[in-house]
Amino acid sequence: MSRYWSSLVHRLMPYVPGEQPRLPNLVKLNTNENPYPPSPRVDAAIAEEMANGGESLRLYPDPGAERLKAVIAIRYMQFGITPQQIFVGNGSDEVLAHVFMALLKHELPIFFPDITYSFYPVYCGLYEIAHVAVPLDENFEIRCEDYAAANGGIIFPNPNAPTGRLLPLSAIERLLLTHHRSVVVIDEAYIDFGGESALALVNQHPNLLVVHTLSKSRSLAGLRVGYAVGHHDLIEALERVKNSFNSYPLDRLAIAGAVAAIGDQEHFEITRQAVISSREALRSTLLRLGFEVQPSAANFIFARHPQHDAGQLAAALRQRGIIVRHFRLPRIDQYLRITIGTDAQCALLVKALAEIVGASILIA
Amino acid sequence: MSRYWSSLVHRLMPYVPGEQPRLPNLVKLNTNENPYPPSPRVDAAIAEEMANGGESLRLYPDPGAERLKAVIAIRYMQFGITPQQIFVGNGSDEVLAHVFMALLKHELPIFFPDITYSFYPVYCGLYEIAHVAVPLDENFEIRCEDYAAANGGIIFPNPNAPTGRLLPLSAIERLLLTHHRSVVVIDEAYIDFGGESALALVNQHPNLLVVHTLSKSRSLAGLRVGYAVGHHDLIEALERVKNSFNSYPLDRLAIAGAVAAIGDQEHFEITRQAVISSREALRSTLLRLGFEVQPSAANFIFARHPQHDAGQLAAALRQRGIIVRHFRLPRIDQYLRITIGTDAQCALLVKALAEIVGASILIA
Repeated sequence: MSRYWSSLVHRLMPYVPGEQPRLPNLVKLNTNENPYPPSPRVDAAIAEEMANGGESLRLYPDPGAERLKAVIAIRYMQFGITPQQIFVGNGSDEVLAHVFMALLKHELPIFFPDITYSFYPVYCGLYEIAHVAVPLDENFEIRCEDYAAANGGIIFPNPNAPTGRLLPLSAIERLLLTHHRSVVVIDEAYIDFGGESALALVNQHPNLLVVHTLSKSRSLAGLRVGYAVGHHDLIEALERVKNSFNSYPLDRLAIAGAVAAIGDQEHFEITRQAVISSREALRSTLLRLGFEVQPSAANFIFARHPQHDAGQLAAALRQRGIIVRHFRLPRIDQYLRITIGTDAQCALLVKALAEIVGASILIA
Repeated sequence: MSRYWSSLVHRLMPYVPGEQPRLPNLVKLNTNENPYPPSPRVDAAIAEEMANGGESLRLYPDPGAERLKAVIAIRYMQFGITPQQIFVGNGSDEVLAHVFMALLKHELPIFFPDITYSFYPVYCGLYEIAHVAVPLDENFEIRCEDYAAANGGIIFPNPNAPTGRLLPLSAIERLLLTHHRSVVVIDEAYIDFGGESALALVNQHPNLLVVHTLSKSRSLAGLRVGYAVGHHDLIEALERVKNSFNSYPLDRLAIAGAVAAIGDQEHFEITRQAVISSREALRSTLLRLGFEVQPSAANFIFARHPQHDAGQLAAALRQRGIIVRHFRLPRIDQYLRITIGTDAQCALLVKALAEIVGASILIA
């Protein structure tokens, strides 16, 4: 607290990201990173940008990152996306921040699920946006009819986090038609692990904005690149806010790496299929260990054990060098969110859980 | 214009950065980039971060960039700066944006010079902060007595941009004492080219915040790293806003490169001295060509020619493959802001200006 703070600062409740411990041999399954490295083309592209000892770093990057917008447009050319429909930012978190300020701040409150990405209410606090947390149903599913009231906008991840549950495209289309007076933001951070992208709907719905990240399916959490796709009017609002905030949000190396990653469809397919198949195998195993596991279309699973407290499970895993995410929040405090690792990491997790669960069954 | 925009977006007047044309052989003297490459240690550090094909990029960076704060604290240990007094961001533009929201938004208007970094009024528009543009005196100097009224904060660059003029530390200290009820932000983007840093005053004045960038004297405009130093209370306000906006503003490569650049004091000294000596040589030459040249403590000079329209001079230079910055703004529309290039680039500039000025003298 300080007399020098603006009144807003006193009221903020900042987001707390999953921890990033730097311990050797840690099995890190807590922040939904990809267990596989990025495309080898990323390495080559960064080496190229660093030619002549990194001489180009003395120059500002392209403020619009036009090269990146061009490759994204090509990647989604089947949907008729043009570069003018793309906004890029310093991770999808920055993109989302600008979305809240530019497109979700209206007279009416915005709607998002009660169980969802916990940064959304933080953005609302930052920009003083009223919101309604709409409860997921008892299966942790989004029920479109619960969003029927007039609103200043709707946002949710699809698949949702931290549940992993997917809403079919047909339901999203119904939402878009019902709420054509407000912007519907679909945060597709995890869509490549099992869902059908709403990018297919962008050119039919001027109120749809789809947000993607390169942190998950492109294995580039360390490079901070995200983007949004929508009608040019929506993109223009984001550009206006961005150009009033920071002209150059993407550095030269991030642009080069992102362009290369988007261009390597083969690496993308191989790694995402590997994650999907590990997820399904892990899900089966956890079910056999007595866990209840939410169906997941993401690179994580959300599970609880009827006989074991989630906080104690997380602590017991940590003692064995495995970290997963446990949210001390209403309705989900008995769940663990477990990132899909390599098959070797999943095997270590399963072995540890079998010990923890089995041992305490013997004691009971 | 769109029904989907928040009311704020309609009112925004975004910043327009200097252009970044990609033409070969261009003599680019328009955005105050350093003509020398970054430290060779930057190249080595980025190569190290990219070990094993960039495998580490799959993992999020350290959200607090603690390694970077540690080396900055060591760099300024003579002033007793600790890592807890340092805030880092995605270029000093992002740092400044957070400063406006966290520390300059109060009941009273903030003060800054009428001729200054043109992003300041843009931030005021973004965060709806009232401001007073205090006129520089007839020599383009900041007169401290003009800032005497009660205010919500004061911000200016030192040396000022685009004039290059320096305010001595004693004047800044007077301002800090007079305005101990509000935050005084000294934006030292160019301080390493000839000024004495107000970092020396940070531990005596809890209302002082000093902002630095690695884009100028560290030759890293392409990597987007800036930081602020002040009392821990001020830094905490910035952290709260940052953690409500984007957890990971600096990517892994930017952190690695910035750490390496700050650590190479020898490269820093050699390149900044080279820029200073080129600036003084260019200033003398321009005076001989009949220009009026503001005294500069920055890596640019601000000059006008009594017989030649600045817009026409800029256009004539552009025809010869040389670009400089010309602001079509009140009081300064007859000035050019010229970045200090290498001696070879300065020689090309002088040759071109001599032709332009000399030729039209012959015609007249």
